This record gives sequence, structure tokens and C-alpha cells, in this order.
Amino acid sequence: VAAGVAAPPDVAGGEDRLIAWLRRREARGREELIGDDATLGAPAADLAVSVDQQVEGVHFSTGLDPRLLGRRLVAVCLSDLAAVGADPLHAWLALSAPTGFDYRRLLDGVLEACRRHGLRLAGGDLARGAGVRAALTVAGRRPPRGRWLRRSAARAGDRLWLAGSLGESALGRILLERGARADARGVALPRSLERPAALAAAARRAVRRHLEPTPQLALGRWLARRRRAAAIDVSDGLALDLHRLCRESGTGAAVTDSALPTSAAHRRLCSRLGLDAERLALAGGEDYALLFALPPTLRVPAVYAARAIGEITARRRVELRRAAGGAEPLPAAGWDHLA
Amino acid sequence: VAAGVAAPPDVAGGEDRLIAWLRRREARGREELIGDDATLGAPAADLAVSVDQQVEGVHFSTGLDPRLLGRRLVAVCLSDLAAVGADPLHAWLALSAPTGFDYRRLLDGVLEACRRHGLRLAGGDLARGAGVRAALTVAGRRPPRGRWLRRSAARAGDRLWLAGSLGESALGRILLERGARADARGVALPRSLERPAALAAAARRAVRRHLEPTPQLALGRWLARRRRAAAIDVSDGLALDLHRLCRESGTGAAVTDSALPTSAAHRRLCSRLGLDAERLALAGGEDYALLFALPPTLRVPAVYAARAIGEITARRRVELRRAAGGAEPLPAAGWDHLA
Repeated sequence: VAAGVAAPPDVAGGEDRLIAWLRRREARGREELIGDDATLGAPAADLAVSVDQQVEGVHFSTGLDPRLLGRRLVAVCLSDLAAVGADPLHAWLALSAPTGFDYRRLLDGVLEACRRHGLRLAGGDLARGAGVRAALTVAGRRPPRGRWLRRSAARAGDRLWLAGSLGESALGRILLERGARADARGVALPRSLERPAALAAAARRAVRRHLEPTPQLALGRWLARRRRAAAIDVSDGLALDLHRLCRESGTGAAVTDSALPTSAAHRRLCSRLGLDAERLALAGGEDYALLFALPPTLRVPAVYAARAIGEITARRRVELRRAAGGAEPLPAAGWDHLA
Repeated sequence: VAAGVAAPPDVAGGEDRLIAWLRRREARGREELIGDDATLGAPAADLAVSVDQQVEGVHFSTGLDPRLLGRRLVAVCLSDLAAVGADPLHAWLALSAPTGFDYRRLLDGVLEACRRHGLRLAGGDLARGAGVRAALTVAGRRPPRGRWLRRSAARAGDRLWLAGSLGESALGRILLERGARADARGVALPRSLERPAALAAAARRAVRRHLEPTPQLALGRWLARRRRAAAIDVSDGLALDLHRLCRESGTGAAVTDSALPTSAAHRRLCSRLGLDAERLALAGGEDYALLFALPPTLRVPAVYAARAIGEITARRRVELRRAAGGAEPLPAAGWDHLA
């Protein structure tokens, strides 16, 4: 069971516990499949499969342009394939929606995103239902001479890297709640956010990032060709997903606050809206950034726009180091806990 | 897009038209993937993949035992694999449900059915959502020296066969609407249906058939090893799915009324409930029976409990022949049209 954005808290401790339960029940004596961002090595040795869903009222608000929803669904699923180093192959859609829903517009969005990322929509199922829900299953292939990226491959001394943005998606979600509007043409902001221009640009960018994250497929492919790399899709917030990476690897980690990728305009916008930019970056969720660990001798080519944000440590704790001095524990809090 | 049970009628003509639209947009110059009960040859040459969903209030009523729901979901999906002749391999679950829903009980049902059919739950995604919806993606493998079963392989002169029951599932759905109750232990009938015993047994059997159809996997495997066989999963009613088979094969067909597999007790029960047993058998839907066409020289081994119900004809019309004499057109009506 790959981590979903909205882990139901009523599963006696959340999705992580449910995964542990499934592992105990199903993994006995068999090759381990469950626990990475995608199933690895099934239904064939060089394939990876992942499923993700978008639920109205949970992952998006009623009235979202179905075309944007279709694009978001594909991007979110491909972020899982990127995190295991797989090249996109095929997708299957399960869609249920009320009478009157514009199915074709959603399919337009899905197909648009499929084309962009070299994915092919190969089948699906449509049904009626109160409220829109779309689930997408994606299959990808391990690149030639590549290795799967695993959560368990980090080692003490590794450098910790991040590609993508943190907290922008959460800010975008909040902006949509506070009156921003988006369709396939662009983002319209509420009056109060139209000035100054730099903050308005940051706001529009946050909404776009929220609605259509960028799966780090090229970087995943590059990582899959390294001798050793650990990776995880940051879908539930950096803090929670870093804890997961460390748990699977049997390590700890330290992240440096000043290395977190937040722009000055983004921080100013957060401050104006009464939001804690650091908290959004650490636990805002739905970033779909790629968090990975590499031996310290390896450098990531600049084209992938990744930045070193910390290191993997032997001691099993996850901490936030202050550039100003000192360190504090970084709790395993995801976006659920902000609600 | 594989045929779903509940084709939304608002997609300008239903799911069949949507499939045609997708085919035009996506299939240009590429090997055909869309249109059978599963995607064939993707993500690898010997694999088939299908996705199906169960939506609360559409495919099942609120309050259905989550364990039964889990078992039904698996059975319905495997019926698609049976119809293309694939052996079950792996499954991925996308589940959304409200707070308080018993996730583990649903997973128990899914895992129980997986074990029974040699399927392995390999991953999934969980989310919150108003109302329970579960989508399952299943992957299967073409058996060694086997061929895919296609809807397009029927030829004039073939004998038409059916394995499974017709109309019982629809009757079971109606009985559940009229007060029958079911859980993992058994079926309880309303007082008025408890006598006579033969009708009560038929009623219980109908509810069980509705809640847990039997995927015809062994028969599908046998058919896949014949030189030529066409097949389709009867999910939307015999009439509609026979029309689909004929359209893909460029043929017509004739079904003989007296050959339809309905028991005397079932017919008596229908009559007592004011239901038209023939109409339920032809268009009741959710039968998950296997309809297939074979050259007339081939006999199906008795172990598969299939019966010859008619023949494939050259003239492109689908008709119902009366054993008492005469014939009438069999319209392409599915269970939607009964509502």
C-alpha cells in the first residue's frame, strides 16, 4: 500500500500501521513488495506499479476544472514512479462522478498529461457516484542497466537531497480555500492579493504547483543508474516522509533549516497571510518533491535542480539543524495534523 | 476503457460511445489495446490488466459487510481476466471511505478472495471520502501456449456458449432492496420469503450470486488454449454484451429462449415477486457469466458447466429464437434501462 495523501486516521494509527499489518499478513516468506512508493518487480521483474486517487472534498474542492483534475491525477501518480526510478508506460483510470459531470474534459486533461510524460492510457472503468473520485494505476519500467530506488537504501554519511519545492503546494491549497480560482487558462487571485506583483506571482505559482506538481521523472531515471541511491516521494510532507525513509533504512537524518527550498517572495507571502512558511515546508504536504540520499562523493547534475538539504546519520533520530546554531527533533507530522 | 457495470448515461450515449471516442483519439497508428474486457499485451506482451470499481449506492447498498464487499470487488475484477483467458497475478486497491469505516474488514475480504484465486494484493492507496468506493486493478498472465480471448474472434456458424448464471444476480439485488440481509456467515430472508423451502433456497442462492459471483477462470484458461475462441464478460446483461461481441466480430447472433440457464425454482420465485425472469436473464446485469463462441465442432468439457445457448450468424442482427417457434430482435438493453 503506497502512501496516500490523506491517510485515514481511524485505521488505528493511520496508513503506516495498516501497511505494517498488511506486510505481516501478506509478506511472509515472499519477496517484499509493499512499502516503497510503487510495487517493485510485479507483475514482471522490470515493472513497477502504483495507484493514487483524487477524491472531491479531500484532495480537491468541488468545482475544480475537470481538465486540471485529470492533469493533477496523472502528475501525482507519476511522482510515485519517479521515486522508484521507473519510466512511465501505461495507465488505467477508475472514475466515478455524478450525472452531468464532464467526463470528456477530465479525459482531455488525463490524455494531455499522458502525452507530456510518455504515458499511455490503456483502459479504465466509469461509474456513477455522488462526488467525483478518480483513481489511476500507473505501470512503469526500470530503465536499462538501472536499479530500483528504494526507501531502505540510505546509509549513515549519505548526503540528503531534495528536488522540487516545499510548502508551495500547501500554500496553493490555502489560497484556493481563500478565494483564488484556477482553470486550464490560468490563476485568478482575490483582489487583496493582486499587489505587490512579486507576491502575486508567488501566489499564482503556488496555486499552479498545488494543482499540477512536476513529477521528477528524469531525475529518477538518473538516480536509478547510480550504484546506490535511496528515494521517497514527498507526498505527506518532508518531515513525515523523511521519517519513513529513515525507518526503512535504519538510520536517522538531519536537515538544515536554511537549506529548505523556499523563495523570499514565498516566505513574505506566507507571513502576510499569517502562515508559518517553515511549517508548511516541513509538513504542508502534497509537494510531490523527490527526497533522496546519495553517497557524499556524488554530485547531482545542475539540470535536475536538486539541492543538498542535510545528511543521513547513524543515530536513529530525525532533527532540524538551525543555521543560527543548535538543533531540535523534527517530529513525524504530516499535513493531516495541521487540519 | 473496459465496460463498467454502471455506464454513465450522460456521456452522450454511454460508455460505449466514450470508448469509441477514446479509440479514435488514442489508437491511431498503434496496436489496439482498448475494447476488450482487459488491456491485452500491456505493460508487457504476456500481461493483461483490468480495473473495476464498487461504488456505495450504485453497486452496493450502504451497510454491506465490508468483508463481502472486498470479496465481491475481487470476484468482479477477476471475471474480466477470465474473459480474456488470463491467469491472476497481482492486484492494487484504491479505497476511499468515511471515518469509522472498517478498512481491515474490507481488506480481510479482499485477501480471502485473493488467496482463493491465486491473486496477490501488491499495493494500493487509502483515502477519506464520503461514501465507500473501492477500485481494484488486476494484472494477469496469458497461460503458456495460450492466446488472448478477444471479443472480435467470433465467426458465422460458431456455437454460442454461456457459463455461469443469468438473472440470479439481478434477483439477488432486488431481494436485498426488499429486505434480505447478508453477512459473511449467510443470508437472512424477510419472513414472507422463508417458505416454501425450495423458493427460499433459490432466494438465498440469488443473493449469494449477486454478492459474490464466480469468475470463470479455469474455463477462460481452457478457452485460451483453443485455436480460436471469442469471449466477453457478461457484466451489463446478456443482450447488451452479446451486441458488443457481435459488433466487434462483425457478425450477428441468435439465442434460443429455452436454452437460457434459469432454474424452475428461480422462475417461480420471480413470478411470485412479480418479476419477468426472462427479462432479468437477458438484461438484469451483474451476472459476471462468461459468454463465448467456438467453432461448432468443439465441445466444452462438462466440468466447466457451460451450455450452448445459440449460434453466431452472418447477418448483423441479434435475435431471440422462440423454442415454440418464431424469432424476435433482441435489443441492446442493459440493466440501466430497467431502472
